[in-house]
Amino acid sequence: MTGFSASAAGAGKLPEALPDIDWLDTDEIRLRQTSYWDASSLTARALARPTTTEEVADVLRIASSTGQPVFTHGGRTTCVDAVRTGAGDIILSLERMNRILEIDPVEGIAVVEAGVVLQTLQEAVAQAGMFLPLDLGARGTCTIGGNVATNAGGVNVLRYGMMRNLVLGMEAVLPTGEVISSMNRMLKNNSGFDLKQLFIGTEGLLGVVTKIVLRLEPDVGARDVAMLALEDFDAVLKLQADAKRTLAARLLSFEVMWGAYYDAVTADGGHRPPLPREAPFYVLVETVAAEAGGGETLLSLLERNLEGGIIADGVVAGSERERSDFWRVRDDFERILAEPPVYLYDVSLPLRSMEAYVGEVEKAFRDAFPDGALHVFGHICDGNLHLFLAPGTAGSDTPGTRRTADEAVYTALSRFEGAISAEHGIGREKKEWLPISRSPEEIALMRRLKRTLDPANILNRGLVFDV
Amino acid sequence: MTGFSASAAGAGKLPEALPDIDWLDTDEIRLRQTSYWDASSLTARALARPTTTEEVADVLRIASSTGQPVFTHGGRTTCVDAVRTGAGDIILSLERMNRILEIDPVEGIAVVEAGVVLQTLQEAVAQAGMFLPLDLGARGTCTIGGNVATNAGGVNVLRYGMMRNLVLGMEAVLPTGEVISSMNRMLKNNSGFDLKQLFIGTEGLLGVVTKIVLRLEPDVGARDVAMLALEDFDAVLKLQADAKRTLAARLLSFEVMWGAYYDAVTADGGHRPPLPREAPFYVLVETVAAEAGGGETLLSLLERNLEGGIIADGVVAGSERERSDFWRVRDDFERILAEPPVYLYDVSLPLRSMEAYVGEVEKAFRDAFPDGALHVFGHICDGNLHLFLAPGTAGSDTPGTRRTADEAVYTALSRFEGAISAEHGIGREKKEWLPISRSPEEIALMRRLKRTLDPANILNRGLVFDV
Repeated sequence: MTGFSASAAGAGKLPEALPDIDWLDTDEIRLRQTSYWDASSLTARALARPTTTEEVADVLRIASSTGQPVFTHGGRTTCVDAVRTGAGDIILSLERMNRILEIDPVEGIAVVEAGVVLQTLQEAVAQAGMFLPLDLGARGTCTIGGNVATNAGGVNVLRYGMMRNLVLGMEAVLPTGEVISSMNRMLKNNSGFDLKQLFIGTEGLLGVVTKIVLRLEPDVGARDVAMLALEDFDAVLKLQADAKRTLAARLLSFEVMWGAYYDAVTADGGHRPPLPREAPFYVLVETVAAEAGGGETLLSLLERNLEGGIIADGVVAGSERERSDFWRVRDDFERILAEPPVYLYDVSLPLRSMEAYVGEVEKAFRDAFPDGALHVFGHICDGNLHLFLAPGTAGSDTPGTRRTADEAVYTALSRFEGAISAEHGIGREKKEWLPISRSPEEIALMRRLKRTLDPANILNRGLVFDV
Repeated sequence: MTGFSASAAGAGKLPEALPDIDWLDTDEIRLRQTSYWDASSLTARALARPTTTEEVADVLRIASSTGQPVFTHGGRTTCVDAVRTGAGDIILSLERMNRILEIDPVEGIAVVEAGVVLQTLQEAVAQAGMFLPLDLGARGTCTIGGNVATNAGGVNVLRYGMMRNLVLGMEAVLPTGEVISSMNRMLKNNSGFDLKQLFIGTEGLLGVVTKIVLRLEPDVGARDVAMLALEDFDAVLKLQADAKRTLAARLLSFEVMWGAYYDAVTADGGHRPPLPREAPFYVLVETVAAEAGGGETLLSLLERNLEGGIIADGVVAGSERERSDFWRVRDDFERILAEPPVYLYDVSLPLRSMEAYVGEVEKAFRDAFPDGALHVFGHICDGNLHLFLAPGTAGSDTPGTRRTADEAVYTALSRFEGAISAEHGIGREKKEWLPISRSPEEIALMRRLKRTLDPANILNRGLVFDV
């Protein structure tokens, strides 16, 4: 424990109680933008930047004993309003716990502190001749700890699974200050309960993740990428089934963009379109190039499906530069966000229901906002769609506008038994809608776990559900 | 709730309290062998064979309110003494909840009751043109519910992960009788805590799994299998690294047998050896045959490593019959068990420590039992070794003999920071050794979870740890 003054802690004044920790005060905190999606200034009583697990434990132990609310911050890329704080809150930022402790290519593991930025780790792992399977648009700012807390998905889930599948070991601090060190390095370990599951995907409600052991894969080497245009969703479904079956795990990504999305990001002043605009669907498919025989397998898939009339048009990237240009069309949706408000949704549902679902959302939304725009892309092999709803000139950013958008998305979803969040989580933004995807018994069990691990309810209070 | 008599329940007489459930009495129970590894008769007060989740809930609700210990039984293939019961216990067997409720090849899911036998499901899934990734030696008797409760591994983990990675949704009954239905069918769902993780790999301590949604994969089609002989462990490590990198997910299994194991199962009267005996190591490697180009990739791996001197000798299966003969050498270890006692261990540890570890175990064991035998095989790419220790003529099955074997295995393991169970779990057999792999804080947190979900401590009492 670092220098601890009991009387100061008693008054809930954590910075005074723990003077050895690096703290930011209210004015310094105000210089920070709340999140990527929310430009307003952060507000909080104080922000701790611990450099050790012991410092994290000290903050939580005192906060628990005094009932002081604490919010954990990683890269603040949340899409679900999970990092906003109030004037009385303490922020625990992991930004200074950002060391890569070990990369071991032989055993295929990386050991990192939670504050490491995803892209930083991706690059370090690549330098060691290995591959970190996690990849997503926010790579430049999101942190591994945040990726764990939200069970991040992204563009390689099809092949490697979500973050939960990549985490071998973990160290976390319970809200009451106990350090749970489960820094397992083995691919298989059934020696007692797999406690790390309590912290993965629970949005920071049950503890603060401080260190992580990640599994690495052999370097995938060169990749082949194609951009394809398709005439209808049935063709998209047929192509993904063929790709999954014949390419198997050589298939790294299969991203589908609805035509309106592609057209918007490639409109004048936007990205150069790799294929002519105004097709109903675009698919970005990426494969691991084979050791011998190069990209033949992707090419034979494309040839077969062009001949069969499934693919209407297509182009294969001829260079790393072109590959990265193709991906920018998918990743870089700044133009979609140019005219706020734009509401972002992240749902999953059965493949066979996707087309009908998007049609229903579109109809309901356009009934309310005739000049609104609906933009959709997704990792459809994962059952995952991302929707951007923009009411256009008809709607300003009011609770009523958002409500109409929410209802368009979730009313249809509940009919198709979909999930209200595939990979972004619940945060504050979706908590009202949680009962669409989870039963009262499930929510009661979540509450029971929260009360067991965080009896004073100090950690990320009010996210996901109310205790 | 089925017909419930409060007074009978008050006396702990569950069969009388729930007469609508199918019960076996003490005499009928005695006809059952405890487990595959333990030929003694089962003993229990009564055995319930519920056919619905509601019946399971009724048993648990009454048991919780009266403090009646209940043990859940699936296929009783446990290797860790997890199904033995006492005269006062109630057994809850899922054997009659064995329906396959749905197989949907388009969405790639199967929905089953927990009592379905693994092989039965494998065959039904294959009939639907799909592939169930889980496979292990006990396939003919183990149940899906048991596979979930133990987070089963097996021969395809390298490519598909353990059971935890295959379970999309689940219905389970808490020890207090609440039904938690999380029958998610989506590959991705971050809508609140992933509660199924509480039941996967927790050896039945936190609830009874009743229904499961499993993810299926496209049919892998033909497979290529080779049996290889290698001169030293360094060659085994080099071959597995090459195979993982170049075959990637085309690699289905990579099984290593130490020479003594291979020699024992292929000795006179045993299986026909696909390769000459007395090599130091044998590798059984199985790949998914490519769509186009057949088995060329496995063949080129083999050619490259034969030329490079890594592989000393090898043979590729020329028919499905040969393939199955090769696998029998790996799977069918009856000859190893022929002269009891034989103690079975299941550990995981870093790849680079395996050879030294096996050497240390062998030395320690032979110091105690000079004519003892140590047989080893494993899924080494998963870091997983299975060890059979037979003291030979020097040891009868006494606590002292077992203790000596345990100490040989675990003393060395703790130095290499290995896990005492890679895939079999802890049960009663390994619980004394749990502190080798898990810290006091971790065990305290496991206890806290158990007390929260099972306050009367009725379910699988005494397995894994004491509450």
